[in-house]
Amino acid sequence: MFVHTQKLQYPSKPEKPDAVYARKLQEVIGGQYGEITVAMQYSFQAWNAHIPGKYRDLLFSTAAEEFGHIEMLATMVAQLLEKAPLGITEKAIQDDPAVAAIIGGTDLQQAIVSGAGARPVDSMGNPWTGAYITASGNLLADMTSNINAEMQGRLQVARLYHMTDDRGVKDLLGFLLARDTMHQNQWLAAARELQAEGNENIPVPSNFPQGKEHEEFSYQAINFSDGTHMADGSWASGKAPDGLGKFTYVDTPPEGVPMAPPTHPDARFYGTTEQPNMVEKIAGKVQEKFNKE
Amino acid sequence: MFVHTQKLQYPSKPEKPDAVYARKLQEVIGGQYGEITVAMQYSFQAWNAHIPGKYRDLLFSTAAEEFGHIEMLATMVAQLLEKAPLGITEKAIQDDPAVAAIIGGTDLQQAIVSGAGARPVDSMGNPWTGAYITASGNLLADMTSNINAEMQGRLQVARLYHMTDDRGVKDLLGFLLARDTMHQNQWLAAARELQAEGNENIPVPSNFPQGKEHEEFSYQAINFSDGTHMADGSWASGKAPDGLGKFTYVDTPPEGVPMAPPTHPDARFYGTTEQPNMVEKIAGKVQEKFNKE
Amino acid sequence: MFVHTQKLQYPSKPEKPDAVYARKLQEVIGGQYGEITVAMQYSFQAWNAHIPGKYRDLLFSTAAEEFGHIEMLATMVAQLLEKAPLGITEKAIQDDPAVAAIIGGTDLQQAIVSGAGARPVDSMGNPWTGAYITASGNLLADMTSNINAEMQGRLQVARLYHMTDDRGVKDLLGFLLARDTMHQNQWLAAARELQAEGNENIPVPSNFPQGKEHEEFSYQAINFSDGTHMADGSWASGKAPDGLGKFTYVDTPPEGVPMAPPTHPDARFYGTTEQPNMVEKIAGKVQEKFNKE
Amino acid sequence: MFVHTQKLQYPSKPEKPDAVYARKLQEVIGGQYGEITVAMQYSFQAWNAHIPGKYRDLLFSTAAEEFGHIEMLATMVAQLLEKAPLGITEKAIQDDPAVAAIIGGTDLQQAIVSGAGARPVDSMGNPWTGAYITASGNLLADMTSNINAEMQGRLQVARLYHMTDDRGVKDLLGFLLARDTMHQNQWLAAARELQAEGNENIPVPSNFPQGKEHEEFSYQAINFSDGTHMADGSWASGKAPDGLGKFTYVDTPPEGVPMAPPTHPDARFYGTTEQPNMVEKIAGKVQEKFNKE
Amino acid sequence: MFVHTQKLQYPSKPEKPDAVYARKLQEVIGGQYGEITVAMQYSFQAWNAHIPGKYRDLLFSTAAEEFGHIEMLATMVAQLLEKAPLGITEKAIQDDPAVAAIIGGTDLQQAIVSGAGARPVDSMGNPWTGAYITASGNLLADMTSNINAEMQGRLQVARLYHMTDDRGVKDLLGFLLARDTMHQNQWLAAARELQAEGNENIPVPSNFPQGKEHEEFSYQAINFSDGTHMADGSWASGKAPDGLGKFTYVDTPPEGVPMAPPTHPDARFYGTTEQPNMVEKIAGKVQEKFNKE
Amino acid sequence: MFVHTQKLQYPSKPEKPDAVYARKLQEVIGGQYGEITVAMQYSFQAWNAHIPGKYRDLLFSTAAEEFGHIEMLATMVAQLLEKAPLGITEKAIQDDPAVAAIIGGTDLQQAIVSGAGARPVDSMGNPWTGAYITASGNLLADMTSNINAEMQGRLQVARLYHMTDDRGVKDLLGFLLARDTMHQNQWLAAARELQAEGNENIPVPSNFPQGKEHEEFSYQAINFSDGTHMADGSWASGKAPDGLGKFTYVDTPPEGVPMAPPTHPDARFYGTTEQPNMVEKIAGKVQEKFNKE
Repeated sequence: MFVHTQKLQYPSKPEKPDAVYARKLQEVIGGQYGEITVAMQYSFQAWNAHIPGKYRDLLFSTAAEEFGHIEMLATMVAQLLEKAPLGITEKAIQDDPAVAAIIGGTDLQQAIVSGAGARPVDSMGNPWTGAYITASGNLLADMTSNINAEMQGRLQVARLYHMTDDRGVKDLLGFLLARDTMHQNQWLAAARELQAEGNENIPVPSNFPQGKEHEEFSYQAINFSDGTHMADGSWASGKAPDGLGKFTYVDTPPEGVPMAPPTHPDARFYGTTEQPNMVEKIAGKVQEKFNKE
Repeated sequence: MFVHTQKLQYPSKPEKPDAVYARKLQEVIGGQYGEITVAMQYSFQAWNAHIPGKYRDLLFSTAAEEFGHIEMLATMVAQLLEKAPLGITEKAIQDDPAVAAIIGGTDLQQAIVSGAGARPVDSMGNPWTGAYITASGNLLADMTSNINAEMQGRLQVARLYHMTDDRGVKDLLGFLLARDTMHQNQWLAAARELQAEGNENIPVPSNFPQGKEHEEFSYQAINFSDGTHMADGSWASGKAPDGLGKFTYVDTPPEGVPMAPPTHPDARFYGTTEQPNMVEKIAGKVQEKFNKE
Repeated sequence: MFVHTQKLQYPSKPEKPDAVYARKLQEVIGGQYGEITVAMQYSFQAWNAHIPGKYRDLLFSTAAEEFGHIEMLATMVAQLLEKAPLGITEKAIQDDPAVAAIIGGTDLQQAIVSGAGARPVDSMGNPWTGAYITASGNLLADMTSNINAEMQGRLQVARLYHMTDDRGVKDLLGFLLARDTMHQNQWLAAARELQAEGNENIPVPSNFPQGKEHEEFSYQAINFSDGTHMADGSWASGKAPDGLGKFTYVDTPPEGVPMAPPTHPDARFYGTTEQPNMVEKIAGKVQEKFNKE
Repeated sequence: MFVHTQKLQYPSKPEKPDAVYARKLQEVIGGQYGEITVAMQYSFQAWNAHIPGKYRDLLFSTAAEEFGHIEMLATMVAQLLEKAPLGITEKAIQDDPAVAAIIGGTDLQQAIVSGAGARPVDSMGNPWTGAYITASGNLLADMTSNINAEMQGRLQVARLYHMTDDRGVKDLLGFLLARDTMHQNQWLAAARELQAEGNENIPVPSNFPQGKEHEEFSYQAINFSDGTHMADGSWASGKAPDGLGKFTYVDTPPEGVPMAPPTHPDARFYGTTEQPNMVEKIAGKVQEKFNKE
Repeated sequence: MFVHTQKLQYPSKPEKPDAVYARKLQEVIGGQYGEITVAMQYSFQAWNAHIPGKYRDLLFSTAAEEFGHIEMLATMVAQLLEKAPLGITEKAIQDDPAVAAIIGGTDLQQAIVSGAGARPVDSMGNPWTGAYITASGNLLADMTSNINAEMQGRLQVARLYHMTDDRGVKDLLGFLLARDTMHQNQWLAAARELQAEGNENIPVPSNFPQGKEHEEFSYQAINFSDGTHMADGSWASGKAPDGLGKFTYVDTPPEGVPMAPPTHPDARFYGTTEQPNMVEKIAGKVQEKFNKE
Repeated sequence: MFVHTQKLQYPSKPEKPDAVYARKLQEVIGGQYGEITVAMQYSFQAWNAHIPGKYRDLLFSTAAEEFGHIEMLATMVAQLLEKAPLGITEKAIQDDPAVAAIIGGTDLQQAIVSGAGARPVDSMGNPWTGAYITASGNLLADMTSNINAEMQGRLQVARLYHMTDDRGVKDLLGFLLARDTMHQNQWLAAARELQAEGNENIPVPSNFPQGKEHEEFSYQAINFSDGTHMADGSWASGKAPDGLGKFTYVDTPPEGVPMAPPTHPDARFYGTTEQPNMVEKIAGKVQEKFNKE
């Protein structure tokens, strides 16, 4: 159950309107690693969790926090758009290059569709999609997905920070950066705790039955390119991070095995087969079959 | 530059056809964490890399390997479909429940569209999309994304392993599981090496200018739900994984700040505003403006 | 700001698992008119609202309620999937047609991807998309969109009600149907109130400047098909619902005006133009131009 | 059966080319509420209709009309693009800010993909999708969807009207606005007629069996936010629009019921469960099972 | 302008309902090569055409015909669904395997969303998308796209023909197959006529300025795989189909040129660069810059 | 199996950065007819091929070549973006219109998401989708799809050629144009060879059983529009390209057959039916049924 409060977690108020920047902010609202993604991802992870307690509590809490982040950003976008120009005459463009600049830089649907408001899309106008989220039921895999989401998200906010001079916008981004710092740390801590408690380990899933995986390939760094430096990394020799194996380096791909011969499905799929003169035969046979029906 | 060899990395041959399982395998070909995703993700990460050398060599190598994985799975799907029934009569269904079972369990487009062949889609028929991949230019963020991708991928292959009795299929999956083990380990090793070398650290990006982030919020575990166990985790107290801060726990969300007042964009967006009698005024004013034009 | 409580609005507990039905329920979680749609639609309408007060309060309240509906349904799905069969042998199918039935009827990604959990998709596996929602800033238009959403949503829940015998599921659906009844009524009341207060009227937007619309076409029921009963409806004569015009009926489409002649864009778009021998001319001209560069 | 006539319903000719505006017009061709949407929506509603006669005749007629609207807009776009600049040199930009403005404001695919022609996309380049349309078989729900579509559509055309000074474009938009006025009125009239005739009523579907819906929740305005004005609306007290119930107001959400305990699906889904030491047990058990196979 | 007639081009009536087949037919309604695709593709090609006359007339005519094909198929789907079972009890499944078969084989949204009606989606439930169509303004390219569309479409209808025993369905498909035969032939004739008239030639676009293309690579069959039979085809030697060049065969890829060195964009993108100790430098520099602001 | 080499097929180096053009190039990387499309299309055609030998060898070879084309273009994009401006101040815009121009012309996600790198999207930011490719198992249909893909692709590269003055970019495009020339020719040669060898013929599929198609409609050019020139083409009379039939011309659509009557599915779908007073009856009946349950 969610309850809404008409307060924001942190002030969200630009110094002045900026319709071009309003479009850029859409990336962290409705993009692959925007706030909708993390809010929905943590929610579904909590709903799909198989353990009550601290991990699920953390997921529910962070999900609710992130819904509030969408709200702060949507509020910011609406304010950035408050004076968005609706129509731009040719004269205005001649007089002021800044007007010209605005023309192409805005999200046209923020104007035409939402009437100067935020939208559930990214900075290029792609609608947010459920295909962005991850909730597998395996907490170590999912915490790792969360660490990644917060890294990519903080990276994008940091880039956006350098794309504006507006102190109000920067103030909000400074808050979001701090929360991304917290969330990177918290999911890292949770991932470590899961392993420390023996709930799960590397490689995920760690309890896949022994002997079923072809372990002779499990620690081989096979080079499928011709880069000469692949052998230099810690992945080419020494103990593997899972503590179970030892890396070896294979300089060129093994020769491989022959490909399976091409398949010959039912002739009524009308695929092209090798016998040039078979076409007539198939036709005859199918014809025959059909004549009987 | 890529070169193709008409060999497979590992045998890919089912014991017998199984059109229902052919559909399930699509998940690890064209799904969110299927082989197309990792092949394309590692390729774009390599093309967007800003350092030559071991990390980029590893990316190019693994990308090429994964293109070969798509091939093995596509080959497997074609063979599983080789005897796929085209039409199923009502009589056949009455005689054999297995026939009935097949009806709904197959990917109809594997039959109607590709003529008993694999497709670039997931197990529910969603086409693969470029929105699945991550390539940010920041290697620690991207290696973390890769660790996650290999975890989710191995998890899915493990689940698929239990959904068939076919020894040929299981043999191939056993190979793929081993390579996922390797790849989880290798990206983990690379992520650690990046940090050990001082290229990047937690939180990503680690060189965002100090003092711009509102650090008073950077280590606060704020509970936005009412779960009582959130305080029990290692994310609620003690040193944070980034080594820079110390977690504190805040039991209920701070009171927050007032929301910004609603915006009043240009009346020609025809948004609904608060003054009931303003409608006429706006209409009059706009009318006046237009009468002049 | 949203706060989460670890309670459900209403009991959500099936009598027994039913993996086939778990897939059907996805429609009202992540479909075009599922709970994610209404939760996000009302949220964005609230964030884009230009008036504080009762309408925005109602939007915030209902948005928060709907997030709780997603939660109840996701919880239900997880329970319906609790005993979902992972692998089904051929023998099991021969023994029990019900097992056969389950094969094709389940959402494969609920198993392979989320490990027996709910997903942000519809009953055919399409991910939820931001393209489903409507938030225009014009409250009468948006309230009408909301009435429609609650009608379509209640219709779907009603259909789903007849597709199960599980009393636990039916109990939850009976609750959701009641809330849809409330929400249909509330948005209808709000739409009427907006008009009664003079905020907006039919046709939306009602304050578009007079004389700019070609009013001679504003009340004409023109028949572009050959159905003979179109003239029988209340839309073919009498006063129009907006109270401003009077319907007239036009039995066949007016003759129309000539189409504009085809365009001739820059030859370097390589479009096909009418003069057969112009190809060489264009080529020559372009060639000439390039030779100079 | 559809027949095409090489005439337009209304003149569609701009005063002069305007590649930036050509992009904006895409919204009402291929956007969520563009002409493709209404043409296809009314077509599918007609094909799915369960009654012959006036309602279906009206749907077929309006569908055919809307296909003609796509045509007028596509024709307009082609003309607006007729002189679209193909390449823009840096010198041209320095000389004329208007040239600079055009660069970012155009739909690049109108140039690169369609060679200065219209496309089935919206103003941000998203392809039109069948996910936009509604055709439920329930005419009151669908007429309400149609009213909404015509409201949103007219709102967008009105906004676009203010974004150009071109008299030719404005002339066509003035015609489209008039038809949207007609269509809002006609669907409203149809929705009322359906109710007057007793075909359907509020709440949709009105013939869902009595006593199955939990009616104690059907007229409760429950406040899930902390807005103090929600109680002020007509949805908080008095008779509900369906004429069947009476609104009551509930100031804070009821306490709720406990969440269901987390599920424990088959261990072979490799979800994370609560017993730290269970990992080994599961592994052992699964191992055992597999050893036997 | 389009006008609708309440007649079908050909009878569309199944012998009996078949909800499973109703789903399969969706492929040729709303799939990549379904009737919506060809109707929209020919319409946009006509609207984007730069020549009046026979080619455009043919496009308009065939577009209108294809809209009528959607209608016949949608009508067929509705009839196939007329007796679709709504709810299926476990008992029914035990009694009749055919019931079991139906469960998974149907399009759930045909039931839940459209109430036993057709939808604008393919056989796996993916909504039709504008991304399927091609309209480039170059008629030879587009006619070739049309030939392909009719080939793929006829192939799919042929496959569907073998998936049913219903004589009513087969009768309609026999008609559609005939029209696909006509359309394959007509677009082939048109493509030849365009070339015979000198409007366009191979390679498209044929009037790209001479000397700008690196012609030394224009007729080289370079083998990037290790298949030994590539040299056996007519593409490896002899005159090329465009009549302008002569094929040569190159057995292994040329050595290639060095890759460009990795880029070093602005440090504020936070990409990972090669100097381990540069991180601090960048941080310092950025810090300095920000301190000044 | 694919192997990667750290070489490019041809030099890919711009004279100078150009962030606006970097966005345009995305069309031929991740657009409908970009290099990802052809690389994946030829790969899946090879994997789905039913004949070993020259055709499949050609597919494998060209697929591998096209993966290398993606690489050259991605490399080019990264270099064009190397000096992409991150933030643009208002002052800079006033001083230099070229700066203004850049604002709207860039792909924002190339900056915010990939940190000045290429992405798997088209020029409007739509992610590449598996829905773009064709692999039917019928080689003549698929070769025709390939001819079309290379025509559309070369057309787009030709247009892009005219949109830049950069000699480095033009040099690479000149190479790609040459390879598109080769590929158009090679697929044409292959399509002819398939027919010459009797593997397949027009109409595809050519071995559909005789007498099942309604041949009286197979060569009729029926005019569904009112264009008077449709009769002038070679498709209206004379021998059809398939050599099997003779075109005839039908000036107006045949009268058609009556539409099927509307369907009456199960009342529990709550569709609207014709008897006004039936609503109560249905409700009663359903009620009765439910009372018994």
